[in-house]
Amino acid sequence: MRVYNFSAGPTMLPLEVLQEAGTNIEDYNGSGMSVMEMSHRSKWYEPIHNECIALVRELMEVPDNYEVLLVQGGASQQFAAVPLNLLTTGKADYIVTGNFAKKAYEEATKYGDIKLVATSEPEKYTYIPKTTRADFREDASYVHITENNTIFGSKYHTLPDTGNIPLVADLSSCIMSEYTDVSKYGLIYAGAQKNLAPAGLTMVIVRKDLIGHEMDICPTMLKYSTQAGKNNSLYNTPPCWCIYVMMLNLRYLKKIGGVKEMEKINKEKAAMLYDFIDNSSFWTNPVAVEDRSMMNVPFRSPNEELDALFIKGAEAEGLVTLKGHRLAGGMRASIYNAMPVEGVKKLISYMAQFEKEHK
Amino acid sequence: MRVYNFSAGPTMLPLEVLQEAGTNIEDYNGSGMSVMEMSHRSKWYEPIHNECIALVRELMEVPDNYEVLLVQGGASQQFAAVPLNLLTTGKADYIVTGNFAKKAYEEATKYGDIKLVATSEPEKYTYIPKTTRADFREDASYVHITENNTIFGSKYHTLPDTGNIPLVADLSSCIMSEYTDVSKYGLIYAGAQKNLAPAGLTMVIVRKDLIGHEMDICPTMLKYSTQAGKNNSLYNTPPCWCIYVMMLNLRYLKKIGGVKEMEKINKEKAAMLYDFIDNSSFWTNPVAVEDRSMMNVPFRSPNEELDALFIKGAEAEGLVTLKGHRLAGGMRASIYNAMPVEGVKKLISYMAQFEKEHK
Repeated sequence: MRVYNFSAGPTMLPLEVLQEAGTNIEDYNGSGMSVMEMSHRSKWYEPIHNECIALVRELMEVPDNYEVLLVQGGASQQFAAVPLNLLTTGKADYIVTGNFAKKAYEEATKYGDIKLVATSEPEKYTYIPKTTRADFREDASYVHITENNTIFGSKYHTLPDTGNIPLVADLSSCIMSEYTDVSKYGLIYAGAQKNLAPAGLTMVIVRKDLIGHEMDICPTMLKYSTQAGKNNSLYNTPPCWCIYVMMLNLRYLKKIGGVKEMEKINKEKAAMLYDFIDNSSFWTNPVAVEDRSMMNVPFRSPNEELDALFIKGAEAEGLVTLKGHRLAGGMRASIYNAMPVEGVKKLISYMAQFEKEHK
Repeated sequence: MRVYNFSAGPTMLPLEVLQEAGTNIEDYNGSGMSVMEMSHRSKWYEPIHNECIALVRELMEVPDNYEVLLVQGGASQQFAAVPLNLLTTGKADYIVTGNFAKKAYEEATKYGDIKLVATSEPEKYTYIPKTTRADFREDASYVHITENNTIFGSKYHTLPDTGNIPLVADLSSCIMSEYTDVSKYGLIYAGAQKNLAPAGLTMVIVRKDLIGHEMDICPTMLKYSTQAGKNNSLYNTPPCWCIYVMMLNLRYLKKIGGVKEMEKINKEKAAMLYDFIDNSSFWTNPVAVEDRSMMNVPFRSPNEELDALFIKGAEAEGLVTLKGHRLAGGMRASIYNAMPVEGVKKLISYMAQFEKEHK
């Protein structure tokens, strides 16, 4: 029996996508081999690769002056790749809104003069700090934000005004969950294991004029120029299977109506869950209402014993991986694109029942 | 119909491994989810991860003073990671025996004083240069070799004598194809997409005393210390599906008798093919007999037109991806662990038929 998996990532994929991947696993479309066995330079694999990138461009309406790159190493590797590629003035400004934002900031300090413009750490990352254009240094190479905070459940709903300074954003846990105006960013990166694909793949969308200015010490595999242009993310062997499943997943997203339709469904799911929590005197969510994430919803019962009891009881109902991150405690329901509305309804129903039994 | 795939990588996996992966693709062992959907910190995934690493240790008889790390980025990323982690004296010595060895050498020159001790490039990489202990600098941090040359089909059958200087070797295209005495190396790395797993995974086996001396500029994700010890290659999200398939593949290798049994089969396959080529006045292999690879066998007919005709004809027989690398031309049969003896026999049979028709 399939469960509803509320993991923060890796997490659910649409059943239809898994089924198609399974059907083809010994012989992809008459090639006589699995996608896991194909040369990345073969006539069988290349159409998969190119369709994946074309679907990203189509679904996110990526402007022509941006490259879509498929790389490895996760967002954590981009924490170094971003400064190594973009720090042309030696200065960059960071806003810290969570654990991963802080890691990105700390990694960047190895490579230049990095300003911590604002942080919500003293308030346990329960809100997004407000900034104005004047907070950023005029000669900063870029401003870095983590758009959605996976662990603490906050999100930028209005991007900071950085004027002409390129905005760099980690969209790992909100990519393709809602409409994104790519032209507002210098660079977007995202680990694939939440809304895109199985773990082991990272997507970078970067404005072309920002490519090619990397530091001498930048490893070849971390340079955007290595995978851009005619190399087409095939400089070395890519994670072909992850790219294949991502392609199937994007085909599915297109079929159901694309990112804007997905956004409607995601809004509905998040509204249901937050409304239920806000109308309860038992369950609480600590995040400022205007900054709440649509993807990651942390919540707590009145005490830790009840939290533990709830997590155990939920698992028996097929509602799994609800334990909060060790830095946050309590519970967290990650309701990414592939979580059906029914999964959220079932969670709310179990939360209501648990509340009745333990109030 | 399944084909015999002679790709240099990604390449064949045992059918049994693909079948098991397919059977579990929607619901792994009653977890209610695919391995592609599992949190890497879940009770379902962790046993897979730990079994994979334990099987590497068992099958390769890895001594206790070595770490086995599962990372991302391919061998190409290790070309930078090796000097960034190991170049404690600022000096290292490289032997260049092929295209990837040259890339490793060039990348290292960005980070220190790198000596090109020997190269077979002027002879189109058709042999392994002989070296003695005196060729290496006493204060070199390490000596780097590419043990098997995937493109040109040569292999170190006797390791260079480096005295007390740690030997670092790229084993991407020969890992677990034959017995390896791990204690002779300071560090071994290998992209997984030839003998281990689907593309997107890289294995590093490193002597513990060499970990933790990285340069300040080393990106966190390229430090061996980031994934070593208690982090257990789970510092960030690993490529879980690739690790799962690698675990299945290693279980299979263990079942058929382990690396020593695999070595016997590989020797048989390679001997059959080389004997056939050497006994033919039509087919040729350019590599010095004592340096020939057991995994990658380049060969040519008398001219390029016949090469093209052969590749096309072979494909119609279900013998695919035989085209040589663009730098080498001609044909190349990569006969990794998962290529059955029958595949090599069928190739030889078609080569004999083609020779008869076109001599």
